[in-house]
Amino acid sequence: MSWVERELREQPTALARFLDRERDDVRARAPALVERDVRYLLIASRGSSGNAARYAQYLFGAFNQLPVAFSTPSLYTLYDAPPKLDGALAIAISQSGESPDVVSVLAEATRQGRPTVAITNECESPLTRHADWVLPLHAGHERAVAATKTYLNSIAAVALLSAALAGDDTRIAAIDAMPDAVEAQVERSLAASPTLDRYAGADGGVVVARGLNLATAFEIALKIRELSGIPFEPFSSADLLHGPIAALLPGRPVLVVAPSGPTV
Amino acid sequence: MSWVERELREQPTALARFLDRERDDVRARAPALVERDVRYLLIASRGSSGNAARYAQYLFGAFNQLPVAFSTPSLYTLYDAPPKLDGALAIAISQSGESPDVVSVLAEATRQGRPTVAITNECESPLTRHADWVLPLHAGHERAVAATKTYLNSIAAVALLSAALAGDDTRIAAIDAMPDAVEAQVERSLAASPTLDRYAGADGGVVVARGLNLATAFEIALKIRELSGIPFEPFSSADLLHGPIAALLPGRPVLVVAPSGPTV
Repeated sequence: MSWVERELREQPTALARFLDRERDDVRARAPALVERDVRYLLIASRGSSGNAARYAQYLFGAFNQLPVAFSTPSLYTLYDAPPKLDGALAIAISQSGESPDVVSVLAEATRQGRPTVAITNECESPLTRHADWVLPLHAGHERAVAATKTYLNSIAAVALLSAALAGDDTRIAAIDAMPDAVEAQVERSLAASPTLDRYAGADGGVVVARGLNLATAFEIALKIRELSGIPFEPFSSADLLHGPIAALLPGRPVLVVAPSGPTV
Repeated sequence: MSWVERELREQPTALARFLDRERDDVRARAPALVERDVRYLLIASRGSSGNAARYAQYLFGAFNQLPVAFSTPSLYTLYDAPPKLDGALAIAISQSGESPDVVSVLAEATRQGRPTVAITNECESPLTRHADWVLPLHAGHERAVAATKTYLNSIAAVALLSAALAGDDTRIAAIDAMPDAVEAQVERSLAASPTLDRYAGADGGVVVARGLNLATAFEIALKIRELSGIPFEPFSSADLLHGPIAALLPGRPVLVVAPSGPTV
């Protein structure tokens, strides 16, 4: 069994651990986060954590009426010209807590007196020195290059924060049901994987989604790349029509993330 | 001569026309834009206009200390759950002024009493009905699918707004010198284009940049796609290391946008 498959199978346990240890604390502390004149969230992240941020952008927008801006770390590091963060709640998402770019955004937010949250799997990392609140992912050690448990727990952290901020116990109960749901889905997905063998020769492809699942499209594309080296690309179905649709080519698979509800 | 080449050659004239007609008005009106408790900019856009927005994100951040958030149109249209826009100055960039997504963001900002600007090439478009201020691009008619004059004038509009907001006459003078600089560059680029013939058989590639020129990397990749159908992808040099570097393959060209100054 590969490390990726092993860690995929560890996801339900890792998710349950995160929820057991953090649910009550998040529920108690989240409402105070937006007390300090918060108008929007500023999220710093990279890679898979950046996709968790993309999920946050739609989730906090739709369920908390909070706009989300992604930070531009080079303004903090390369240009040494950070923006004024009045009105921002700064959130960093970083599995390792070590990316200097992500750390620099949280450090600047602290310097400007803004509230800060660090969502990370490493509680002793440089990132946590600049956070009012460290929200640990409890995903355990991850050996595979492709993030599995940390990605799942990151989006769970985002979902939990959003629900707690809204005081929405129905959503928190739905999140609590997720470890069992994930376990069943991992089994279904692994059982169905042989049907994908016919795409083994593809030299590229596209993943399409919209809104809350745009993050899923980005993460699927990143995972395929990391594990196969084949350039898959994520697109919003709306953006695809503005130019990049020219890149859809015969023989290249198109994955569509199409859950029920208003999506694609 | 193709439409694209013809319109590339029309860029200096179109840019000079925009600056002549709008410079003084922008200089006079821009400072009032941020008077209404503006903490950040919210930009709605798609396609090439989205790349102008990406340029704005770094420019307003570095030179006006204003964070920039990109709107998530599906929250306004698909989910009917728009965020609260307290603290936002809403800017739409749309060549045609017709994208319902982009229009919906500006309409909601107006509904919430926030200041709004429409940057567009079509002054009679649906977008302009929801803008306190319409900033026309004066790019003239564009026939080619690939935006040339409208993209250049959009980034000029962004640069002019940023400089006027900062009251920076040195930068405005530098912008005024751009039509001549663009004319010289178009000649140099067209003269050098035969050296690119050896890449004609490429089946994909990557464009890398960072910070203020990240927009340039995105626009180059989009242009190559639109004109050739070949999937070129843009990356921030920082993001590239977090996973997608696995997609760099032998035989695929990598373009690096590397001006002087702190960039890559």
